[in-house]
Amino acid sequence: MTKSNAFYAQSGGVTSVINVTACAVINELRKNQQQIKDIYAGNNGILGALKEELIDISCEPQGNILKLMHTPGGAFGSCRYKLQESSADFERIIHVFKAHNIRYFFYNGGNDSMDTAHKIAKYSKHIGYDLQCIGIPKTIDNDLAITDCCPGFGSAAKFLATSMSEANQDVASMCATSTKVFVLEVMGRHAGWLAAATAMATFDDNSPHLIIFPEILLNIDKFLALLEQKVKTHGYCCITISEGAKYETGNFLSASTSVVDSFGHQQLGGTAVNICTLIKKNLGYKYHYAISDYLQRSARHISSKVDVDQAYAVGKYAVELAMSGETDKMPVIIRKSNIPYRWAIKSASLEKIANKEKKLPKEYIDNDGFGVTQQFYDYLQPLIQGEEVPIYKNGLPVYAKLQKKLVEKKVKIYTPNI
Amino acid sequence: MTKSNAFYAQSGGVTSVINVTACAVINELRKNQQQIKDIYAGNNGILGALKEELIDISCEPQGNILKLMHTPGGAFGSCRYKLQESSADFERIIHVFKAHNIRYFFYNGGNDSMDTAHKIAKYSKHIGYDLQCIGIPKTIDNDLAITDCCPGFGSAAKFLATSMSEANQDVASMCATSTKVFVLEVMGRHAGWLAAATAMATFDDNSPHLIIFPEILLNIDKFLALLEQKVKTHGYCCITISEGAKYETGNFLSASTSVVDSFGHQQLGGTAVNICTLIKKNLGYKYHYAISDYLQRSARHISSKVDVDQAYAVGKYAVELAMSGETDKMPVIIRKSNIPYRWAIKSASLEKIANKEKKLPKEYIDNDGFGVTQQFYDYLQPLIQGEEVPIYKNGLPVYAKLQKKLVEKKVKIYTPNI
Repeated sequence: MTKSNAFYAQSGGVTSVINVTACAVINELRKNQQQIKDIYAGNNGILGALKEELIDISCEPQGNILKLMHTPGGAFGSCRYKLQESSADFERIIHVFKAHNIRYFFYNGGNDSMDTAHKIAKYSKHIGYDLQCIGIPKTIDNDLAITDCCPGFGSAAKFLATSMSEANQDVASMCATSTKVFVLEVMGRHAGWLAAATAMATFDDNSPHLIIFPEILLNIDKFLALLEQKVKTHGYCCITISEGAKYETGNFLSASTSVVDSFGHQQLGGTAVNICTLIKKNLGYKYHYAISDYLQRSARHISSKVDVDQAYAVGKYAVELAMSGETDKMPVIIRKSNIPYRWAIKSASLEKIANKEKKLPKEYIDNDGFGVTQQFYDYLQPLIQGEEVPIYKNGLPVYAKLQKKLVEKKVKIYTPNI
Repeated sequence: MTKSNAFYAQSGGVTSVINVTACAVINELRKNQQQIKDIYAGNNGILGALKEELIDISCEPQGNILKLMHTPGGAFGSCRYKLQESSADFERIIHVFKAHNIRYFFYNGGNDSMDTAHKIAKYSKHIGYDLQCIGIPKTIDNDLAITDCCPGFGSAAKFLATSMSEANQDVASMCATSTKVFVLEVMGRHAGWLAAATAMATFDDNSPHLIIFPEILLNIDKFLALLEQKVKTHGYCCITISEGAKYETGNFLSASTSVVDSFGHQQLGGTAVNICTLIKKNLGYKYHYAISDYLQRSARHISSKVDVDQAYAVGKYAVELAMSGETDKMPVIIRKSNIPYRWAIKSASLEKIANKEKKLPKEYIDNDGFGVTQQFYDYLQPLIQGEEVPIYKNGLPVYAKLQKKLVEKKVKIYTPNI
C-alpha cells in the first residue's frame, strides 16, 4: 500500500478539550503506519495549509503529545478565516496538499468549519484529487446538528454550573446588607445551551435564578416582576444572561457593531452591565456581575470526564473513518441511554451539519421562559460527570509546550485575504 | 469552672475558605466542653448579635459542619455593617451577649471587622463585661497588616493564576486572525495582590502580559507603547487590570459613584471595558475581556491546599487564644522559610491590624510598573500550592446545607441602622 501524509487543523473558537481530540488523532494516525507516513498540523488552522506552514508532528516528543490531554486552547493555533468562494483558496489548499502528498485531512471545528470541510471534500472530488476529508466536532456552543452534544460543551457547562453554584453561595451570604443580584454573562451567540447549563447549580434545590436565553426575546416587565418576587422571597437572585440576549425589538442587549469577524458575525459582549443598569434603575438592587468570556471555554482545570472521553473518542473515530476510505463525514455522538448514561460514535455527512445551528429546543425551556425543564436537566446531567483533573506543578496546571517545527516549503508563497 | 457560651460571626466579603475557619472554630470549641456550653453563630454576621438572631450550632449534624470544609460563601451569612460610633450598637451587642451568657466572641473578617472587634473588646472592658474577643483574619485582598498572608487570598490567587494561564493558551491560539488582547479584571480596591497573582501564569515562560496595579497611576502612553511592542513580538498580549486602577489624574478608570457601602467604599467595576475601548481606539486590536468578580472569591473548586490549611489553623488558634484567656487579639500567619515553605501562627493585637491596609510593596512591582519581581514570585509561590478538591456529586460540588435554627430570643427587639 502506498503511504501518504495526514494533515490536522484546528478551527474557530477553541475549547478546553480540543487538544484532547488532537492527541487522539495523532495517537491513532501513529498506529496506522501502513497507510500514514508523516503527520502534519496546520500552524493556525487552515491558514497553515494556505500559507504552507505545516507543523511536523514527528518533531514533537510523545510526552508533549500526551500533555495535550490537559492543555487548553488550540495547541497548533486556530483561526477564524472563511475560504474565499472563488476557487483560489480551494485550489491553493489542494496544491499544498499535493506538494506534500497529503491525502488525509482532519478539520476540527464548529458549523462554519464543517461547511469548509464539506466544500474542500467536494472540490477535491471535483478535480479528481483523492482526499479523505473528515470533520471533527468541537464547540462550547453545543449547536452542531445531528450529534447529541459537542466536545467542549460539557466542560464549559461544568465550569459555568460550578461557578454559578459557588457564586450562589456567595451572594446568598451577602444579601442581608449588600448585593441582592448577581449576574453571570455567558457565551452562546444564538443558542442558549451554555446559559441553560448554569441551571444545574440551582435546579435541585430551587435556588432563586433567572436565565435570559438568546432564543427568547426579553420581556422586561415580566423579567423585573419575576426578579422582584424572587428577591422578596429569598433575599437575592442569581441571573444568567447570554451574550446573545435580545430585547423584544430584536436588538441585542449589547452589540459591538464595529467588530465583525470574517463570517460576518458581530462580536457580542457587555449584556451583563446593561441588564444590571436596568435592574438598578427599576428595582434599586445592589448588583454584581461577572463575565466569564474566555475563562469558560479554556477552564481545563474543571473539565468533565465525559467530555474529555468524548473529545478523544471523536478524534479516534475520525481517523478510523479516514482509514476505511470515508470522506466528507463527521463523527457524531449518539446517546443510547440517560441512566446509566451510554453513548456511541457514528458518522454523519458533513453536508447535513455544515452551517446548521441547533438551538435549545423549546421543551428544554420552562413556561416562564427564564428557566429549564426536567428534560433539559436529564439531558445535561450526564455530560458534566466526572472530574478529569490536570497535572499540577508548583500550584498551576502543566501544559504541552510544542516545538512547532515547520516542514520545508515546496510551493510558491500565497497570501490569503485575512 | 463555670461554663459559658461562644459566638462566631462572619463579616464582610466572603471567601472560598471562610467556612473552613468556621469549621475549625466549631470543632475546637466542641473540644473545650469544660469551658464552653453552647456555640452560636451570627445569622448574617454581627447583625445576628444586634438582632438577636443566634444560630444554634448544636442543631447542626457534625456531617454538615464537616461539609463547611468545601462550602464557599459564608454559610451563616455575612454582612457589611459598620457599628454606629454612638454606643447604642455596642451596648446592644453586650446586652445580647449577657442575655445569652456569651463570653467568647470570634469575629471572622477583614480590616474593617478587626476594627469592630477591637472596639467591642475595648467597650466590654470599659463596662466591666468579661469577654474574650478574638478577630480571625479573612480576605481575598491580602491587605491585613502584620500577618504574612490572609486566608482566602491563596485560593483566589490560585483561581486567577490558573484562569490567566488557561486564557493565555486560548488567546495565543486565536491571535493569528482574531483576538490580540485579552483583559482580565480582578478585585482589589487599593491593593494589587490579586492583580499580581495572575503573573504566576506568565512569569516562568515570559508570556506577554501587562498588569495594571491599583498602586501605580496608569501612564496611558507608556502602557500603549509596551502593549504594542508585546503584540508585535508575540502576536498577542494578556492584560490584568485591577478594579481599583486609576488614571494619572487619580480618578478610578471606572467607578460607580452612586453605590457606596456602609464604610463609605465606592463599588468599583467596569475597568476592563474602559481599557479595552482605549486599546481599540488607539491600536485597533480586537479584544476580549473577562470580569471574574465573585467567581474569584468563591472558587472553592480550585482552592489552594496551603490556604485551606491556614484557614483552618487560624480558626483553631483563635479558639486556643480565647481558651487561654486572651482578648483583643488576632492570629497571624508567620513565614518561617520559603523553600521549603514553613509557617506558624502567632497572635497580634487587634489595634495594630484595625483599619490598616497592606498594599503591594514597591519591591514586588517591576521597574516598568506593569509586572512583578522575582521577590513577589517567591512570596506567592508557596501560597498557591496543592489542590484541595471538594467532594463532587452528579458532576457538581457538594455543599453544607445548614438548618440555621435560631435560639429563642430573650431581649427586646432592636433595629440596627442598616
